[in-house]
Amino acid sequence: MEQLFSTVRTDLALEAREMLTKQVREDIPGVLVETSEDEDLIINRVNISTPEAERMMGKAQGSYITIEAPGLRYKNTPLQQKIMNILATELAAMVNLPRNATVLIVGLGNWNVTPDALGPRAAHKIVVTRHLQELLSPELKGGVRSVCAIAPGVLGITGMETAEIIQGIVGNIKPDLVVAIDALAAASSHRVITTIQLANTGIHPGSGVGNKRFGLTEATLGVPVVALGVPTVVHASTIAMDTINTLQEHAAFGRYFKSMANLSDQDRQTIVRQVLPEMLGDLMVTPKEVDRLIEDIAAVVAGGINQAMHPNIDYDNIHMYLH
Amino acid sequence: MEQLFSTVRTDLALEAREMLTKQVREDIPGVLVETSEDEDLIINRVNISTPEAERMMGKAQGSYITIEAPGLRYKNTPLQQKIMNILATELAAMVNLPRNATVLIVGLGNWNVTPDALGPRAAHKIVVTRHLQELLSPELKGGVRSVCAIAPGVLGITGMETAEIIQGIVGNIKPDLVVAIDALAAASSHRVITTIQLANTGIHPGSGVGNKRFGLTEATLGVPVVALGVPTVVHASTIAMDTINTLQEHAAFGRYFKSMANLSDQDRQTIVRQVLPEMLGDLMVTPKEVDRLIEDIAAVVAGGINQAMHPNIDYDNIHMYLH
Amino acid sequence: MEQLFSTVRTDLALEAREMLTKQVREDIPGVLVETSEDEDLIINRVNISTPEAERMMGKAQGSYITIEAPGLRYKNTPLQQKIMNILATELAAMVNLPRNATVLIVGLGNWNVTPDALGPRAAHKIVVTRHLQELLSPELKGGVRSVCAIAPGVLGITGMETAEIIQGIVGNIKPDLVVAIDALAAASSHRVITTIQLANTGIHPGSGVGNKRFGLTEATLGVPVVALGVPTVVHASTIAMDTINTLQEHAAFGRYFKSMANLSDQDRQTIVRQVLPEMLGDLMVTPKEVDRLIEDIAAVVAGGINQAMHPNIDYDNIHMYLH
Amino acid sequence: MEQLFSTVRTDLALEAREMLTKQVREDIPGVLVETSEDEDLIINRVNISTPEAERMMGKAQGSYITIEAPGLRYKNTPLQQKIMNILATELAAMVNLPRNATVLIVGLGNWNVTPDALGPRAAHKIVVTRHLQELLSPELKGGVRSVCAIAPGVLGITGMETAEIIQGIVGNIKPDLVVAIDALAAASSHRVITTIQLANTGIHPGSGVGNKRFGLTEATLGVPVVALGVPTVVHASTIAMDTINTLQEHAAFGRYFKSMANLSDQDRQTIVRQVLPEMLGDLMVTPKEVDRLIEDIAAVVAGGINQAMHPNIDYDNIHMYLH
Repeated sequence: MEQLFSTVRTDLALEAREMLTKQVREDIPGVLVETSEDEDLIINRVNISTPEAERMMGKAQGSYITIEAPGLRYKNTPLQQKIMNILATELAAMVNLPRNATVLIVGLGNWNVTPDALGPRAAHKIVVTRHLQELLSPELKGGVRSVCAIAPGVLGITGMETAEIIQGIVGNIKPDLVVAIDALAAASSHRVITTIQLANTGIHPGSGVGNKRFGLTEATLGVPVVALGVPTVVHASTIAMDTINTLQEHAAFGRYFKSMANLSDQDRQTIVRQVLPEMLGDLMVTPKEVDRLIEDIAAVVAGGINQAMHPNIDYDNIHMYLH
Repeated sequence: MEQLFSTVRTDLALEAREMLTKQVREDIPGVLVETSEDEDLIINRVNISTPEAERMMGKAQGSYITIEAPGLRYKNTPLQQKIMNILATELAAMVNLPRNATVLIVGLGNWNVTPDALGPRAAHKIVVTRHLQELLSPELKGGVRSVCAIAPGVLGITGMETAEIIQGIVGNIKPDLVVAIDALAAASSHRVITTIQLANTGIHPGSGVGNKRFGLTEATLGVPVVALGVPTVVHASTIAMDTINTLQEHAAFGRYFKSMANLSDQDRQTIVRQVLPEMLGDLMVTPKEVDRLIEDIAAVVAGGINQAMHPNIDYDNIHMYLH
Repeated sequence: MEQLFSTVRTDLALEAREMLTKQVREDIPGVLVETSEDEDLIINRVNISTPEAERMMGKAQGSYITIEAPGLRYKNTPLQQKIMNILATELAAMVNLPRNATVLIVGLGNWNVTPDALGPRAAHKIVVTRHLQELLSPELKGGVRSVCAIAPGVLGITGMETAEIIQGIVGNIKPDLVVAIDALAAASSHRVITTIQLANTGIHPGSGVGNKRFGLTEATLGVPVVALGVPTVVHASTIAMDTINTLQEHAAFGRYFKSMANLSDQDRQTIVRQVLPEMLGDLMVTPKEVDRLIEDIAAVVAGGINQAMHPNIDYDNIHMYLH
Repeated sequence: MEQLFSTVRTDLALEAREMLTKQVREDIPGVLVETSEDEDLIINRVNISTPEAERMMGKAQGSYITIEAPGLRYKNTPLQQKIMNILATELAAMVNLPRNATVLIVGLGNWNVTPDALGPRAAHKIVVTRHLQELLSPELKGGVRSVCAIAPGVLGITGMETAEIIQGIVGNIKPDLVVAIDALAAASSHRVITTIQLANTGIHPGSGVGNKRFGLTEATLGVPVVALGVPTVVHASTIAMDTINTLQEHAAFGRYFKSMANLSDQDRQTIVRQVLPEMLGDLMVTPKEVDRLIEDIAAVVAGGINQAMHPNIDYDNIHMYLH
């Protein structure tokens, strides 16, 4: 069954479930979904609780929370602030961190590839405090956790797997939690830059826009790992596959077909390969203003993490504490 | 007939002709095509010579030369050097410039949008010499033309149409030729970054990745304008449209359809709108490594212009002349 | 007398006067000075009103206002906001602009040289509106002026004098006012990044960190020109000269000297040339964090201009008007 | 005695020795110096071999090689190539590395502070190969070592000491050698960007432009560490101190003084503090074109390391091996 959407790649548990339920036309055992929304946003909680559900979904067991706000596409300070607050609340609830915990934020991805640069850019906006713990005034202690951050770069830049670097650092620094920020691929273009996914599963091999073969998980690092991702691209092959699906699914087009329902997987692949010759995996669909959008969403992501980690900082007057 | 490919947008005359001949299944009167090739590249010359051909092609009358080299995708110094030389030769032949001419190079596009940044990046690699004319040694005179360059930015950055800015500068500087460098959109993903188009037509309203409403043409500027463009994106809607065309055209898929041959334009649009909701015009398909590729092709474009303008400079020892 | 401070170069009228009065030990006829201050800042108004004063000061006749706030060195949002407001008020008072005026903001300097990049960076933060005039709602009209902006680059990048480019654009766009933003050199290191100078004189040849030989003045452009500058460097030779002056002026060191009072200009030059061999003019003294400081002060400068030009925009909700 | 040059800070062993011998007017026991030169460059070898010499020089025991080439200030491809070759030869001779060694290149410094960005920029130009070892053709094996590289960022960005990060990575990757690239401070402005220092001592606390409190040495990392540095700044206080020294040392100025020879250290400090108030340590003197110069010298440094590590790569056709 996995092969059914073999060229529709998504890193969002929400989308994996959408595709799967469309396919099997029923709920998936072991996958729980909760949704809440207001006029600005939808929050989805997907819980994968059995090995069978993990296999069907192609996503590790655990909790996935997506915050989806179409307005993030536009410069909108109040909405950005609102999403930051929600992200901070959800992240704090997910990790339940003691006040004196040390946290390592890891910005995954390649800073030279704009849609893959979310992790490094967000990591550089983190308020790092681990080196300042002795300088903090007593009233800040407890509201300013010990946070450190690094964007290690990707395999092609360092010659080292990200996991090798992070394992080394975690072994030396011994944080209580790792938060890994990463750019993701979505199946639907309208989720690009508008959706933030939090997962308590860590990062598993093969996820994300870049190639991060080794995982960053509690199993490999020895500490809990939260994965915080934002889809920044849709694979071009997804657009092609989606077009075929649209043709097939809409009754309105039925008159053209004899039997599209049984269009074989192999034929789908043939069509996509025809449309996107040679470079199937390399073509990415992004909004034209991706450079600005990545900058804006990196600020939202970093802002949410900062608030979750340091609830007592008055961010308007951050200079008064730190200088 | 234009409407047939209304969502397959291309800035390449070569592709406009390919689509048109596929449609009408015969040669287009007033459009001449010549092709030559070797193991590394194909050179196509498309000449549009009648108003009727202009209308059918959706491209201004004039000469269009495309140099297509798939190897430009990969870091390959000797091939890059070869393409630079060919570009220099073709550009020099197209403009037939006197030795004491002054040339203004204009880098169009938005430096904040990577796939639109080709023009600004190439402009900054131009060897500008207009301010050094009195310092040049006699043996260089004649082989180093008076060249100046500017990347004016786009309407959203300056509040001025590019054409307003360039008209003002041309009126004051009075160059003999303007060369306008611009990022283009292709219809086929395999032409992205691998193809350079030279045209003696100038830039016409609505061309290019960005929005440049006013033209840069001999009619508006009073001096000849060569347009030098490289496709850096495919519109996402083109991928969707291409998928439909592929389904329809390949006999192998015929068994699925009753009558795809007469799939209406309106239905095509409906499908594309379904796949790419809301943001039809904004989604672009680019290679993942677009940042590096733009940097590399900007160097090839600027190198070709530099050689065409300054044939006597020994580029390996450029420091000996200019410092 | 000009030669006395020939190697102590300053672009601030305030400092030129300080040096001059120290020299002549009396007020300079034709130079009026007013000072006001609060706990955060000092505002100085220097008025040069006679040709003789112009010659002695080495600054064009006109009004110079400096806003000096040592706290600008540190990340401090409320102070930055306060300086923006003061800058907006002073600029508005200096130009007394009708509501329907068109204004061209020019960012002078070289974006590749960090301390010279103030102009380009501030220009890119200007809210440009000239192209949106027809889209503005009636209640905004009058509070949102027609503003356009350009950072033309320097002679070595374009091959054109900045004045040639701006003259061309001004001739075509016909603004009512030009505001030219530029990085300056100070005589005192404590004024670097902490001082903003406004002058109704335009930019005169030879001013600024870079080399802008032609002037941008009402005489050359045909419209009033306000120069808005911030010192970003001290010339290294100024540090050396200052050291000599300090030795000479402080009574405490008198015991070492026979007769430093009559240390000749030529000997001063010899010493400086000894300390800073070969590259006298090229060495600049900057704070270590100059990259961040330039970014911050560019935001203050652009913010002040934006408020002066568009008094009715609610900057917290700027997205609501412009999208 | 250390206090004598307490405000003349240099990271070059060569300059430390120059200042010391000027002071004591004789050779320093335990410090050996060898010099060779041609028309383009001077190579100095300083060997510090006793604890007493280490104390007097303020530099760790070991070998220091400086390659000084004034022409590096100017764009000069053949000279840059020559220096790369010499650097490769000296580095290879210093480390005597087996063919199958693994090497970790560490780019120290802050990429947001241009004069401190040498390390990160050079690190990103390193040809990393550790992840490609299995893909290499047999004829390359032996001539392409296993190289990995990282620019970890500085304490203020990561919240972690550089040494903590590197210790973690070294413990996991287990390289045979670490090469640490760093921006240095010189005492003489003419050595800025023109001098490369190689040392087999590693990096000791407090060296360099930035603040790297923990050392990167064989003692802390367990593997040999080569430090490769280039001076990119002179501290502003050095300029002031140099001015005083020049006054004092040149017989020509003797007529002004009673007794400058015994100008006390405290008085020197007073003068410098007067000239450079409040921000003594923060002001740096750099060439105006520091952004371009750092880029150029980073290419020379990385090129030299690449040649030393991978002697068999044909750099003109590097694409043929790696793609």
